[in-house]
Amino acid sequence: MSSDVSVKVLSKSLGNTVLVKLRNGRMLRGLLQGYDQHMNLVLENAEEVIDENSANKLGTIVVRGDNIIMISPT
Amino acid sequence: MSSDVSVKVLSKSLGNTVLVKLRNGRMLRGLLQGYDQHMNLVLENAEEVIDENSANKLGTIVVRGDNIIMISPT
Amino acid sequence: MSSDVSVKVLSKSLGNTVLVKLRNGRMLRGLLQGYDQHMNLVLENAEEVIDENSANKLGTIVVRGDNIIMISPT
Amino acid sequence: MSSDVSVKVLSKSLGNTVLVKLRNGRMLRGLLQGYDQHMNLVLENAEEVIDENSANKLGTIVVRGDNIIMISPT
Amino acid sequence: MSSDVSVKVLSKSLGNTVLVKLRNGRMLRGLLQGYDQHMNLVLENAEEVIDENSANKLGTIVVRGDNIIMISPT
Amino acid sequence: MSSDVSVKVLSKSLGNTVLVKLRNGRMLRGLLQGYDQHMNLVLENAEEVIDENSANKLGTIVVRGDNIIMISPT
Amino acid sequence: MSSDVSVKVLSKSLGNTVLVKLRNGRMLRGLLQGYDQHMNLVLENAEEVIDENSANKLGTIVVRGDNIIMISPT
Repeated sequence: MSSDVSVKVLSKSLGNTVLVKLRNGRMLRGLLQGYDQHMNLVLENAEEVIDENSANKLGTIVVRGDNIIMISPT
Repeated sequence: MSSDVSVKVLSKSLGNTVLVKLRNGRMLRGLLQGYDQHMNLVLENAEEVIDENSANKLGTIVVRGDNIIMISPT
Repeated sequence: MSSDVSVKVLSKSLGNTVLVKLRNGRMLRGLLQGYDQHMNLVLENAEEVIDENSANKLGTIVVRGDNIIMISPT
Repeated sequence: MSSDVSVKVLSKSLGNTVLVKLRNGRMLRGLLQGYDQHMNLVLENAEEVIDENSANKLGTIVVRGDNIIMISPT
Repeated sequence: MSSDVSVKVLSKSLGNTVLVKLRNGRMLRGLLQGYDQHMNLVLENAEEVIDENSANKLGTIVVRGDNIIMISPT
Repeated sequence: MSSDVSVKVLSKSLGNTVLVKLRNGRMLRGLLQGYDQHMNLVLENAEEVIDENSANKLGTIVVRGDNIIMISPT
Repeated sequence: MSSDVSVKVLSKSLGNTVLVKLRNGRMLRGLLQGYDQHMNLVLENAEEVIDENSANKLGTIVVRGDNIIMISPT
């Protein structure tokens, strides 16, 4: 088995920008400052992506993992 | 791994104002008085943010963590 | 960490009136007679708050914690 | 803490009629014959309450606790 | 406490017809051949009850407990 | 109690065709190659049943148990 | 019992393309780089499949297992 692959992906993304797709259809973008085993995330300079040209600034946020569909390093 | 980063963010926010986005689409604002490992929060002088100019006063509230999408210090 | 803050708020509210907001959009009001670690509540003289002037009497009720969004002492 | 208050309320209601509000908006009424720590209930002479004057007879039923919003002794 | 009452009801219903109400609004009827602590059920000669006069034959089925609202012996 | 009845039904169905009803209203059909205690299933030659005359070929699939309402051997 | 069959299917698919159907109705395709016991997946060169002729490039993604309905090797 390869159970720690998702941890490796998140670990390598620390300090880098990630895109986070939420269950409510929203998309977040921010610098990954931390995560835990529930996929709770801490993002810095986070923003909600509205479309290619606009975004809402959110600052530092803690995102509960159970709202997350997928995370992608960028 | 960096599992205690979200705790650190919440810990540093004790006594400060936080914004809390709920699954039902509502937004809360209040002074963070406490939290636990389920992200249950205690907020003082809490209010539901309606829009930039209006809010409903809620006083002290206990918020169940499983209703929370994200928390941001302000 | 400050994991027992929500317990402290509930503990100090025993015997007092609390407002309880449910996930289904309803609001309850009643005297807090008990609670447990799941935020299951026992309310006495409980009523469902319809609006400022009307409410449905419910008597004593046990509320399952997983239906609760927030609790506020009054 | 007072973690066994909801058990006390259910325990005192054994053999008596309780009203049970379900997440799907339905209301049940029946004689409480048993319960467990998940709030699974056994009701005898149960009926689904339609309105003040009508109800559907259900006989003995086992109700899964995770469908329950609140229980009130009558 | 009386935690094993629901088990007793199911146990006494083994080999008998039970009605099962599901969260998706459907109703099943069948001979109870088994159950476990999650209320997973095995029903034989099961059918989905459409109305008083019609039903869809399903044969033997395993029903996941977390889809069940209530079970009633008949 | 008879907690292993559902396991017995699944065990006897290994290598045989089963019908699987999902929470999203879809129906799958395939050869049961495996299962676990969460009712995660492996189906071979699986297809989504559209109606009596048509189906979408899916090949081998792993189905997460928590999406399943019921399983029936055929 | 045959509890490790789904692990075997995922294990044999490492490095190969898999199709992943999500609860929100979306379909993903990508090279399986890893998975864990929650069915959290890491996909490389992932894309959201819109229809037979179009797809949105997503790059590397971590998908939370609890959003997944089914996974199929291709």
